[in-house]
Amino acid sequence: MNSSPPPVRASVLAFDVFGTVVDWHSSIAREVQALRPQADGDAFALAWRAGYRPAMARVMSGELGWTRIDDLHRIILDSIVDQFGLADLSEADRQHLNRAWHRLDPWPDVVTGLTRLKSRYTICTLSNGNIGLLTNMAKRAGLPWDCVLSAEVFRAYKPDPATYLGVARVFDLQPAQVMLVAAHQDDLAAARDCGLQTAYIERPTEFGAAHPKDVSPDAANTWHAKNFLALADQLGC
Amino acid sequence: MNSSPPPVRASVLAFDVFGTVVDWHSSIAREVQALRPQADGDAFALAWRAGYRPAMARVMSGELGWTRIDDLHRIILDSIVDQFGLADLSEADRQHLNRAWHRLDPWPDVVTGLTRLKSRYTICTLSNGNIGLLTNMAKRAGLPWDCVLSAEVFRAYKPDPATYLGVARVFDLQPAQVMLVAAHQDDLAAARDCGLQTAYIERPTEFGAAHPKDVSPDAANTWHAKNFLALADQLGC
Repeated sequence: MNSSPPPVRASVLAFDVFGTVVDWHSSIAREVQALRPQADGDAFALAWRAGYRPAMARVMSGELGWTRIDDLHRIILDSIVDQFGLADLSEADRQHLNRAWHRLDPWPDVVTGLTRLKSRYTICTLSNGNIGLLTNMAKRAGLPWDCVLSAEVFRAYKPDPATYLGVARVFDLQPAQVMLVAAHQDDLAAARDCGLQTAYIERPTEFGAAHPKDVSPDAANTWHAKNFLALADQLGC
Repeated sequence: MNSSPPPVRASVLAFDVFGTVVDWHSSIAREVQALRPQADGDAFALAWRAGYRPAMARVMSGELGWTRIDDLHRIILDSIVDQFGLADLSEADRQHLNRAWHRLDPWPDVVTGLTRLKSRYTICTLSNGNIGLLTNMAKRAGLPWDCVLSAEVFRAYKPDPATYLGVARVFDLQPAQVMLVAAHQDDLAAARDCGLQTAYIERPTEFGAAHPKDVSPDAANTWHAKNFLALADQLGC
């Protein structure tokens, strides 16, 4: 990791979004508590997010047809309201809460870091979030993407290789000319298996300050950075 | 047109690109003359562009499988080099020239106009150009899109309804909440048939100063504007 320079210079940086770019945990906790001050925002955010992978697995197995994350979020929300005493939330409140995923706040280093990285790289999302969600989020938060790529473009969710290789194909590049930037080692490992370069970003409080995450380096990654400013330093931006 | 305000306020402006945002004619003429100063840049640009609709028709009829515009451009290029005395262009020169479509210059009002429109609307492309082409073009020209949408996302070329309705679906909007902005009445008519609002932009020299285009208003459009600055004025941006 970072001991010898990578053989090829990447020209596109593709960013995981939930957890890497935005702090979903505290944003969701805040939004539910805005509706119901007595709600356990921490546990609610974790429960909603925990439903995410199983829901995508139902799509990728074919049990559900192609379904956007907005709709998966809603299915999960409806399945957890009972356990959080929110069963009486109105339809309008449920729709509003479901759109909280469009209103997630970026980590404090993100806008400055992306702006620096954009000066030398094409920067795009590579998220399982749908295009509308990612665009609304970017507009609200000022995220300066060159392009919004999503599972919705490739009709496959990460870690399906079609997503990582899809970015290379969109830009007519070799996989090694694309770098995935993510706070999740499994996402990075899947990208590496497709030949992409990888940069791990530490987000120790992704699951909330009460649930610190292991952010140990994995030597298999091309880069390891504390945040986007450190990555920009490492990449000379 | 513009006599009574539209019943719904659009929240997304989707822009046609070739001809509406960028001046393909003079950019392509300049690029071929940079390679071969004696080439008839005007006629070459018109011939290349003239192959565009027939090539897309071959895809939409099923004669060709899904093919990106980059590849269609190359097929057309290879078919016209003989008539322009360019048959001896090397493979590298052909690749370079084909990428000229990624390097088209915007009309002079575009960057300022889009920046103003972006302050009140979500602005995206809706082009038959592929995502990589549109992203590279935007990065070079400083086009501040919130999102790059393309035929490549919808796997259909305009004027297929899947493209216009696809924009509404991406943003979870009614068709009337989306406005297509274009310099081509047929594109606008197809969008209108899908329920979108429409804004016509005059680009009288789209086909070169020697071939002025009819830019008469069509009362069926929601708006008619000389350029993006005038549209921003009309929309109060």
